[in-house]
Amino acid sequence: MDDTVTAPVTAPVTDTVTACVMIIGDEVLSGRTEDANLNWLATRLTGMGIRLAEARVIPDDEEVIIAAVNEAREKYDYVFTTGGIGPTHDDITALCVAKAFGTELERRPEAVKLLEDHMGRDRLNEARLKMAEVPVGSTLIDNPVSKAPGFRMGNVHVMAGVPSIMRAMFDGIAGDLKGGAKMLSKTVVAYLPEGTVAEGLGRVQDDHPDTEIGSYPFYKAGKFGCSLVTRATDPDELDAAAEDIRQMIRDLGGEPHEDDGSELPPG
Amino acid sequence: MDDTVTAPVTAPVTDTVTACVMIIGDEVLSGRTEDANLNWLATRLTGMGIRLAEARVIPDDEEVIIAAVNEAREKYDYVFTTGGIGPTHDDITALCVAKAFGTELERRPEAVKLLEDHMGRDRLNEARLKMAEVPVGSTLIDNPVSKAPGFRMGNVHVMAGVPSIMRAMFDGIAGDLKGGAKMLSKTVVAYLPEGTVAEGLGRVQDDHPDTEIGSYPFYKAGKFGCSLVTRATDPDELDAAAEDIRQMIRDLGGEPHEDDGSELPPG
Repeated sequence: MDDTVTAPVTAPVTDTVTACVMIIGDEVLSGRTEDANLNWLATRLTGMGIRLAEARVIPDDEEVIIAAVNEAREKYDYVFTTGGIGPTHDDITALCVAKAFGTELERRPEAVKLLEDHMGRDRLNEARLKMAEVPVGSTLIDNPVSKAPGFRMGNVHVMAGVPSIMRAMFDGIAGDLKGGAKMLSKTVVAYLPEGTVAEGLGRVQDDHPDTEIGSYPFYKAGKFGCSLVTRATDPDELDAAAEDIRQMIRDLGGEPHEDDGSELPPG
Repeated sequence: MDDTVTAPVTAPVTDTVTACVMIIGDEVLSGRTEDANLNWLATRLTGMGIRLAEARVIPDDEEVIIAAVNEAREKYDYVFTTGGIGPTHDDITALCVAKAFGTELERRPEAVKLLEDHMGRDRLNEARLKMAEVPVGSTLIDNPVSKAPGFRMGNVHVMAGVPSIMRAMFDGIAGDLKGGAKMLSKTVVAYLPEGTVAEGLGRVQDDHPDTEIGSYPFYKAGKFGCSLVTRATDPDELDAAAEDIRQMIRDLGGEPHEDDGSELPPG
């Protein structure tokens, strides 16, 4: 008798929940289109306690997409793809995800109905019906904007590339995603060059191994400075490290400024 | 006697020259910073006949960076990294690239001199001297903005993350990069929904296997439309496919518009 307990794919068991965003599209790689999804997704995931561990931009190439999806779904708790689910010949994401899971596409009646209600039966040609085809075993993701659905297959969430649609799709599934310990952050700004704070900052990092301290230099209104960002899941650890950073800045003759997020210097 | 002729790493032998852009930085993955380098690099590389085949965003994690650099430098003709070459403890790109190549960092006298001339000897503390450390065997990449150099190690080009510095660095090395057959493109805009053109567009693609035809839907001024982008290295192939697309649009009762690039609809 097999009494092995296996956790469902979408309920990660570790405290750190990881994700990979996969941006699918030749147009992003050629420079024709500037991606407008990564930063939005990164911000949302971080806010939900899901750590975006990697993002990839890959071409509309079946072999590449299948390999990348299979690598990412093994490696991370969640995978989110954007792009390639429209009606044209270059929209191959659904087919590739089906193949990655060793299954095939099926035309889903409820998806056909959504499209039919939206655009009328006479406009629903074969090309548009392609948007009702999803992998066998997948769950539809609602598209309140233009109806053609995305889908979830295992831990892979397939969404549109058009930002307004992607955002609406993500908002619809966000409630089903399980975050881990939420990463908190605190930013202290020093109007001192990065090279001046570097040594002291390294010491603060050494003293606070459970925090991640990053330094992001900027040049603003004729002054060099750096945003010193502390990230931790424990609020006390966070405060302690931030206070040590403030003290270090004072020791260097500077003045620590709090970053209220209203005007982030360029990273 | 070994008379094997090996091509130098930076002179790819195939007609298609490929590249990978690697954006290194926790801040991009957390959403704190929005990447501002990928689209610029993609556009520049495409214009030089270098095909950006993949882009990755990875964290400031030694193991991850080393593995990603080693995978990419084997797979692509050129690798371009951005980020992680400043003076602080979280700037680990140079060290990781050295390790990826099985070598170590050395403090390069000409880099020290650059920093010394720029900021004065008394300000050149240990943290700043870290910016003069590059892998043994690497070549410096000039930084006309803030002097701390990037470097090239084999086919891996290590550049700053700050956009103005990255662009200046890239401009300095662009003349040394060898492009392949340049990918040309032509865009025809149809004010028809994507689902209406999809079938005919698929046929045009089938008739022109040496071109890549992409469709990018948009919604502008109350009208649905799509930008139909043909890409090919042969200008005659390009023109023939674009003409077939125009004819297809006319056959559907639409009117083909040329895209002069002045106002690209969102992809």
